Parts: sequence; structure tokens; C-alpha cells
Amino acid sequence: MSRLELFGIEGVPVVKPGDDLAGLLVAACPDLRDGDVLVVASKVVAKAEGQLEAVDPDDPLSHKPLVEREAVRVLRRRGDLLITETKHGFVCANSGIDRSNVEDGMVVLLPEDPDRSARRMRDAIRARAGVEVAVIVSDTFGRTWRRGLTDVALGCAGIGAVLDLRGSTDTYGHELQVTVVAVVDEIAGAAELVMGKATGICAAVVRGVDPAWLRRGSVREEIVRSPHEDLFR
Amino acid sequence: MSRLELFGIEGVPVVKPGDDLAGLLVAACPDLRDGDVLVVASKVVAKAEGQLEAVDPDDPLSHKPLVEREAVRVLRRRGDLLITETKHGFVCANSGIDRSNVEDGMVVLLPEDPDRSARRMRDAIRARAGVEVAVIVSDTFGRTWRRGLTDVALGCAGIGAVLDLRGSTDTYGHELQVTVVAVVDEIAGAAELVMGKATGICAAVVRGVDPAWLRRGSVREEIVRSPHEDLFR
Repeated sequence: MSRLELFGIEGVPVVKPGDDLAGLLVAACPDLRDGDVLVVASKVVAKAEGQLEAVDPDDPLSHKPLVEREAVRVLRRRGDLLITETKHGFVCANSGIDRSNVEDGMVVLLPEDPDRSARRMRDAIRARAGVEVAVIVSDTFGRTWRRGLTDVALGCAGIGAVLDLRGSTDTYGHELQVTVVAVVDEIAGAAELVMGKATGICAAVVRGVDPAWLRRGSVREEIVRSPHEDLFR
Repeated sequence: MSRLELFGIEGVPVVKPGDDLAGLLVAACPDLRDGDVLVVASKVVAKAEGQLEAVDPDDPLSHKPLVEREAVRVLRRRGDLLITETKHGFVCANSGIDRSNVEDGMVVLLPEDPDRSARRMRDAIRARAGVEVAVIVSDTFGRTWRRGLTDVALGCAGIGAVLDLRGSTDTYGHELQVTVVAVVDEIAGAAELVMGKATGICAAVVRGVDPAWLRRGSVREEIVRSPHEDLFR
């Protein structure tokens, strides 16, 4: 029962605006199955959706006005690094904009609505391959308190973003104090382990998740914390 | 190459102070192999190490003095919840002390030195089963900005805590901007997916990680961020 399998989807070509990303993924991974969780890097989702902007390729800071435009709030500045809150409610470096894995002179923004991107991908996979997968759109964010980055979920569809254990009991019969697990973030981080940053693998399959987790889900509604309930904003 | 398998180790009995936890895990999972990553919940590690304290079972707040004792700093208070920095440098709720999965009248602290706990577990697994595994001691922490908890690594041995990609290039030949990946945190979160809070599964095996990641590692040295380099303390 408690067994998962993860693998990266190799052989996806470079994604361009307007591409049928679902079709490219299905072609590269014909073995998608009902109940699989398909994790797709936000960068290729945003590229396919045309979320690109031109910048001066000779100026390493030419994307900074876009960082401010995509932010609703700047939380911290250190040198060229801005920690911002994006219009989606994510807190991350430089509004999620970086210049890697895109051609010179362009930057990729975050998808406009990553939950919607995930829903559309799920529908498109169903239409092209006839399978019901869950979809997570992932990106790589830093954290407070801890060095290093991990992949987290920006959007999801067909899977609950969190697993709410309130009311469950532990093996001693006590009500659990740790109650809400961010499973889509754990799955996004797990998928990063088989995707990697330097390999060009933009999507992964996580097979074997508990079918009880597969329901309507939303990162925006379940995971994004509003500023007024956040102890550190 | 990029394929991982994860499974929980079932059938481990309730762990008591002084127990040979490595022996219990090897007995429950005789199939451990060289190169596996063994993820063990900090709660059972700490129990085996005797990191228990008695509290008044009838007073739900009787562990709060221990929370303050185990903290070097209280960052935030809201109601009964304290966000503390522990002596290890972790920032978490209530110094990592909760009352679930332990008998009434007791609480479990964090392991005194989780990297050392991981090293000892790795050595003990080698001694008992003749295999070279990496070990991650994991626990469930909240995050800023995002709702829900995820499992992270408190200690590790036989695996680098981070994967440092500085100097690597993306598929376009650009130097990567996202450079340091906290792989042990991603592995700990992945393992939580097959452990669960209510099932009593206290350890998991992650099989198939890149052998290049298997080196000396330390959460303390590589992941714990010192207060002066943290933008939010």
C-alpha cells in the first residue's frame, strides 16, 4: 500500500509559446495511468502559455523592473535579490522570475493562474491519452530559516493540496497535533529529485499515491497563507 | 537513471528508551540495500535515545516549560503556540515538542544531535545488516508563507544535505541561478508520503538516489541558517 514510484519524463523537446505541452508530455510518456500524479515545472507551463518577456540580454539586471511589476509587495531586499509577494500570494525570490532555461534576451514569468494551468493540463491529458491524472505545477523556492531550495507546488488539479488529519488519532489514541500536511509540496519536492536543474527534465510522474488524496484541490485556496494570518509578515 | 522507489517500513514495534532501533528496522526490513536512503522519524530516534520527559497528563500545557527550556530564542507567540529557535538552530513550533505518538504523561524532545543520531544509525545498520545506507532523521515542521506542514531533515549521514549546482549550466548554456538544492529536505518530505502521521509507520526507504549524492553530509553545517544571514530574523 505505502509504496511510491517516481520517474522523470525524458525526451520532451524545448517548449515554445503556443506548444501543446500536454501532447508533448503524452508523446514522451505514453505509459501515463489513471491515478498518476504528473508534476510539471512551472517554467515550461509558463513558456507554453506565452508568459515570456523580452529583456536586454547584455544587462544582467534588465529583468528587475519586471520583478517589481509582478510583485504586490517587496518583503526584503539584499543586493540584487528581492524577496517579493507575487500577485498569486507566493513569497519567493524575484517574483519567481529567473533567466535560466530560457534563451538569451527573454525571461519567463510564473503562470498567470497555476491552479488553472494544472486544471487545463489535466483536462488536456484526459483528452489526449484517456487517463485521469492529477497535475501539480511546481517551482523552486527558497525558505526562511533553512539554506537550500526545494520544489513546491504553485498549482494543482485532481489532488487535494493538503491532507487534513484533524480528528485523526495517533497509535496511542491521542488526537493528532500535527494536523494539516502539505502533500502537494512534498510531492513537488519528491519530483524534483528525478527532474534536476541541469538535465532539462521538465516533468515527472509520481505513481502510487493514496487514491483518497485524489479530489478537487487548489494551492491558492489551501496553501497560500494570507498576510494577516502569517506571523512573519 | 532518474527513477526512485519509496516504501514505508511496516511492522516496527513501539520503540522504548534503550531499544536497538537499527536492529528493529533491519528486522522489519531485511531487504535494505547499499545506496538506499533510510529515513527515520525523529520521534522514534529520540525515544530510543531516551529523550523523554515526564509531564502532568491532566494539564495540556504542562510541557510548555520544556518548550522554553529547549529554545534559545522565542521568535513569535500566538496563544499557546510558540515559534522558537532550538539549540540546534531549527526554527519550529514549540521547540519540536508535541504530545502525539507517546504515552500519556510523557513528551519526546528532539534528538540532542540529529546528525550524530544519523551517523550512529548508519553505523549500526552497517554492523547489523552489512549494507551501506544513507540515513536521514526527519521531522514535521511548518513554514512561513505557506499553510500545511512538510517533513524536513534534522540530521543526515552518508548523503550530502544539499546538492550544490554552482557552476552548472542549463540546457541553454547559462550558468544556473538556482544553485543549491536541499535534497535531504526533499527526500524527507517524499518519505512522509509513505509514512503518514496516523499509521505508526516510523521509517521509510528511498531507493535509487544518484550515487553522486552519497557523501559525508550534515544538516547542521549545510542547511541550518545562522540568524545573521537570515533576512527574516
